[in-house]
Amino acid sequence: MLPIVKGLLEGDRRSLARAISIVDNDERESREIIGQIFAKTGGAKTVGFTGPGGAGKSSLVGKLIPQFRALGHKVAVLAVDPSSPITGGAILGDRVRMQDSLDDEKVFMRSMASRGAVGGVSKSLRNAIRILDAAGYNLILVESVGAGQLEVEISRVVDLTVVLFTPHTGDSVQAVKAGLSEIGDMYVVNKSDIDGAAKLYSTVVDLIGNTDRKPVVLKTSAKTGRGVKELAETVDKLLKEKSINYKERQRKMLEDELRDMVLNMMEKKVSYTLAHDQKYYDFVNRLTKKEIDPYLAAEQLVSALFK
Amino acid sequence: MLPIVKGLLEGDRRSLARAISIVDNDERESREIIGQIFAKTGGAKTVGFTGPGGAGKSSLVGKLIPQFRALGHKVAVLAVDPSSPITGGAILGDRVRMQDSLDDEKVFMRSMASRGAVGGVSKSLRNAIRILDAAGYNLILVESVGAGQLEVEISRVVDLTVVLFTPHTGDSVQAVKAGLSEIGDMYVVNKSDIDGAAKLYSTVVDLIGNTDRKPVVLKTSAKTGRGVKELAETVDKLLKEKSINYKERQRKMLEDELRDMVLNMMEKKVSYTLAHDQKYYDFVNRLTKKEIDPYLAAEQLVSALFK
Repeated sequence: MLPIVKGLLEGDRRSLARAISIVDNDERESREIIGQIFAKTGGAKTVGFTGPGGAGKSSLVGKLIPQFRALGHKVAVLAVDPSSPITGGAILGDRVRMQDSLDDEKVFMRSMASRGAVGGVSKSLRNAIRILDAAGYNLILVESVGAGQLEVEISRVVDLTVVLFTPHTGDSVQAVKAGLSEIGDMYVVNKSDIDGAAKLYSTVVDLIGNTDRKPVVLKTSAKTGRGVKELAETVDKLLKEKSINYKERQRKMLEDELRDMVLNMMEKKVSYTLAHDQKYYDFVNRLTKKEIDPYLAAEQLVSALFK
Repeated sequence: MLPIVKGLLEGDRRSLARAISIVDNDERESREIIGQIFAKTGGAKTVGFTGPGGAGKSSLVGKLIPQFRALGHKVAVLAVDPSSPITGGAILGDRVRMQDSLDDEKVFMRSMASRGAVGGVSKSLRNAIRILDAAGYNLILVESVGAGQLEVEISRVVDLTVVLFTPHTGDSVQAVKAGLSEIGDMYVVNKSDIDGAAKLYSTVVDLIGNTDRKPVVLKTSAKTGRGVKELAETVDKLLKEKSINYKERQRKMLEDELRDMVLNMMEKKVSYTLAHDQKYYDFVNRLTKKEIDPYLAAEQLVSALFK
């Protein structure tokens, strides 16, 4: 067993942090670490918090931690921030937000950069979750920092997705329409203490809450604390209900992961073959002379190289 | 020849707009349209405008249009906005911004959503550029709306990349460090009329302008108009200088495009094979039982299916 694996299994926070950095950066050791802990995983539940930038995800997650602790969970937070130029360390905002929880050994917090290839976020996250799971954290909160195309990728790898909206983000109704309406297992109107919250809440209930699958819609205020306890309890309850179908969901997630990994390996193989085959360059020549168009060139090249 | 192709070659703006929507949505007709116009393309030059959200890209591009018109160009603008819930039409901001140029037949403006698969932006853009090129626009400005991971994808498909910074976006220096320093052919400090612009300009000159490749660094203010004419002239000059190596660059872009298309086709093939082969599900079974870890499963599956 690698010393780092031994360390994280024994609860050494430094080993834990280092192991997450290794999988986040997709370093060579990732493979060995995951190989050694994989059989020990499967105990943790995961909750994703997502929504437009400015929805107050970080503050709300900060307030939820003590509530989840009170419900008996050992809690870890992964903040996914691909735009962060800082890798391998918690970002300042997190440190400030987490200060109440920092001296609690049963709370662990980490930022991930997860830049790079498509599916890079999913891959890093899946493995970071496994590491925290193996280290004994049984509730892992995943938070997307900022907005963007991360939402869907995160929702694919967690057990429960909470989508946050707030009256402050003018684009909330657009976000509702633009696809976030499909990924959430529950919806929260945060900053319920400010103007426009009641109206936004009705909109979300109308547009999403009243659809066939009837997801829960709640109101919270990270500032006043209102609704935060109820949110934690609802998440806890939904996770328990969901665990009836948990094995099926786990299986689906492993299917996705295996397909992603195979696609990734095949992409490397195909790129290599192209770069080392004269036919590829012959087709590029014909394209530059406009003797063939790109669609036809791609088809003929695939036929020639990958029967 | 398709009627839509005939229309766009004759300068019909409705056909042009429709054709761009078709390639943006990757509809079936894309292939035929590109097949019919490909031989007529290659005349246009393309300039990408990129940078952190809030850098004033839209306003600056709006001000540049009359300058480029004065230099004799027939100008088209493609605004790439993957977060836009609106597809197939110009967004409101664009309409407002473009009102000065809207009655000019030699200016064409279009928003693209380009959601979807990785490389989806590149593919849509390349083909939208071809359509505008075939329709006789000889200068195509590509603008990324908002921030995100689009920058690199856009810079891959244009001849010249202009990176904008502004003192208003607090994360400019981070953005400089986070990779934008590599993709620009030139750099602009926009909103030069506000506090902090002089300092930011020095920073950009220090961190980027003084590197070995010595890219041009300029100051502009879309509000006062200062520096805008100089920027247009510099872009025009750089495009002419670059055209010495234009053939080589075109070749490189076609190489990238052909590889992207082959990878995309292979991804579809591999996904299909997996979904229809029992071995894939056998490995998923073994993963759920934790008899094997994901890395090993992926390797063995690739060996078994894709010798």
